[in-house]
Amino acid sequence: MKIAVLPGDGIGTEIVSEAVKVLEVLDLKFEMKSALVGGAAYEAHGHPLPESTLQLAKEADAILFGAVGDWKYDKLDRPLRPEQAILGLRKHLGLFANFRPAICYEQLVGASSLKPELIAGLDILIIRELTGDIYFGQPRGRRTAVDGHFPGAEEAFDTMRYSRPEIERIAHVAFQAARKRNKKVTSVDKANVLETFQFWKDVVTDVHKEYPDVELQHMYVDNAAMQLVKAPKAFDVVVTGNMFGDILSDEASMLTGSIGMLPSASLNSKGQGLYEPSHGSAPDIAGKGVANPLATILSAAMMLRFSLNQEAAAQRIETAVQKVLAQGLRTPDIWSEGTTKVGTAQMGDAVVKAL
Amino acid sequence: MKIAVLPGDGIGTEIVSEAVKVLEVLDLKFEMKSALVGGAAYEAHGHPLPESTLQLAKEADAILFGAVGDWKYDKLDRPLRPEQAILGLRKHLGLFANFRPAICYEQLVGASSLKPELIAGLDILIIRELTGDIYFGQPRGRRTAVDGHFPGAEEAFDTMRYSRPEIERIAHVAFQAARKRNKKVTSVDKANVLETFQFWKDVVTDVHKEYPDVELQHMYVDNAAMQLVKAPKAFDVVVTGNMFGDILSDEASMLTGSIGMLPSASLNSKGQGLYEPSHGSAPDIAGKGVANPLATILSAAMMLRFSLNQEAAAQRIETAVQKVLAQGLRTPDIWSEGTTKVGTAQMGDAVVKAL
Ligand SMILES: CC(C)[C@H](C(=O)O)[C@@H](O)C(=O)O
Ligand SMILES: CC(C)[C@H](C(=O)O)[C@@H](O)C(=O)O
Repeated sequence: MKIAVLPGDGIGTEIVSEAVKVLEVLDLKFEMKSALVGGAAYEAHGHPLPESTLQLAKEADAILFGAVGDWKYDKLDRPLRPEQAILGLRKHLGLFANFRPAICYEQLVGASSLKPELIAGLDILIIRELTGDIYFGQPRGRRTAVDGHFPGAEEAFDTMRYSRPEIERIAHVAFQAARKRNKKVTSVDKANVLETFQFWKDVVTDVHKEYPDVELQHMYVDNAAMQLVKAPKAFDVVVTGNMFGDILSDEASMLTGSIGMLPSASLNSKGQGLYEPSHGSAPDIAGKGVANPLATILSAAMMLRFSLNQEAAAQRIETAVQKVLAQGLRTPDIWSEGTTKVGTAQMGDAVVKAL
Repeated sequence: MKIAVLPGDGIGTEIVSEAVKVLEVLDLKFEMKSALVGGAAYEAHGHPLPESTLQLAKEADAILFGAVGDWKYDKLDRPLRPEQAILGLRKHLGLFANFRPAICYEQLVGASSLKPELIAGLDILIIRELTGDIYFGQPRGRRTAVDGHFPGAEEAFDTMRYSRPEIERIAHVAFQAARKRNKKVTSVDKANVLETFQFWKDVVTDVHKEYPDVELQHMYVDNAAMQLVKAPKAFDVVVTGNMFGDILSDEASMLTGSIGMLPSASLNSKGQGLYEPSHGSAPDIAGKGVANPLATILSAAMMLRFSLNQEAAAQRIETAVQKVLAQGLRTPDIWSEGTTKVGTAQMGDAVVKAL
């Protein structure tokens, strides 16, 4: 089992170290190889996703990813910016299915902006299509407008698009995931305005015929953004496109108040996957040893489950994380009165010990 | 002063009646003419925005709009569906600047999903560009994919676009609005992925040079969706495109927990405007006399202020609404223990009395 370890920038290196520590004590036969990615790779090799890193990722069964990005790269041309690495990995590995659980841990209910009764017990799964939509659609660029409100003016444009098989495969992923959960899928679209999402809605409805045991609900994206705030627990599995999924999955994770706890997985059709925390590279706290490594450790658990076929080991990690929370250990982002504040490495050590 | 009154569907007729009642007691010289719009217009004339309704709207100084839409029209072809009326009015009247305040009324703090300390005193203004972006961009439609992941497959597509003057004019609106408030603008984009929104960011940055007294912050849309949940009061004026604005303005209004209180205005460059509540047509409670008319009444106040140059009358209405809230009157959507539950007409009457 080959794992490519790509820590990236900011807190990425610190949190990935802890996840690697945890993986190492499991006594499974992994081959773990590290490579630079994002700003770190740009500094060393002049590109955020060097050929050697991409190659390592392609040959691996799974990728453990930290985070990329730092304000200091803001002035670089877009193709050289850190986030191009993550877009490039998604594209070149065909990682079309992004799983973003939004779970509210019992002990962390207080960290949420929402009233406890609205958030306690939250367990929703956002499935975001990750290789299509306006993220990759061509043509895009700048040009002189030939029509619209100001013909002759300079304009910029992008293309939103989805093909039937792209929608079908992510719909199957969503219905299958729902079967293992509460058998309810909410497909989020903007069919009242966009051709792309009228088509999305039609195709999801077609695919649903193969899953009569799963309930399907259609919801407009603006309404979904509202219902997530109003009654998040009404959702089970949410499936949507790349752009809407970007917005809604971040909104949903922030609802829990503990985004530092939330893992994610991005899979291709061969079961290869990239696993990363839902949060970013947080350059403001990088190097201080205070970042929460649990989202990355839980991402490693997802990796064991989805790409490495090690369900038992995945559960062991998840149980260990529950245990350290029960012990009252908290990194600063989830700390509250009455609990014990610990740093990144201490938290990782505690998980290792709980294993 | 000509007002076109377009009640529309669902609760639209009930809530607009109350706003008209309020306008009538002001003793100003209006000419108010009503017309059908949305599903109601489709039933009567076979089109959601009949030529006669559009004409009336064009000739008016302001439009008082209720709401459109009902599930029973879901099966109609897109061009005949009720929401096309609102898109058509925006387009034909050039209503490019949408003002969506998200205000948390002191007495209604408890209605929010958020903890009181996060939401009490909230007063943000979302300015959404309303006639551009992927809502109206051409080309759009269905076709056979020639490239992408599945060449040869059926696909649907839309075009996102913004021209420099379109971005400039909405940026000016935002900076000018901020000058009358807390002098802070957050421009929401997705410059890390979209050409359109890199351009948006560049142009907003250019326009900002004319407003050195206003602070400008750029934020990615996914982050904005998170920060609205985490710390909504950190925002003052938010300016963004049509699509992102649709999502974020709905998220922001739902944060207050009392979307039944929130008005909106959509203006063109001549000061003509369409005024409507931020909520929808709520067909489930239509005809029951329980809908909250206050968002529509407050929209009428915005109309007096922005399009009819009647600031004093606008303030009188706003004060009257504050008064009925202080009296403890509540429609069911904002009712809580210890307050008095009233219906739509009673609420309208109370505002009239408070005037
Ligand atoms: C960094 C950025 C390109 C990326 C995205 O928009 O997909 C990020 O927001 C995410 O959700 O992983
Ligand atoms: C009805 C729909 C077309 C409309 C939009 O998306 O603009 C609505 O959601 C709104 O925000 O006014």
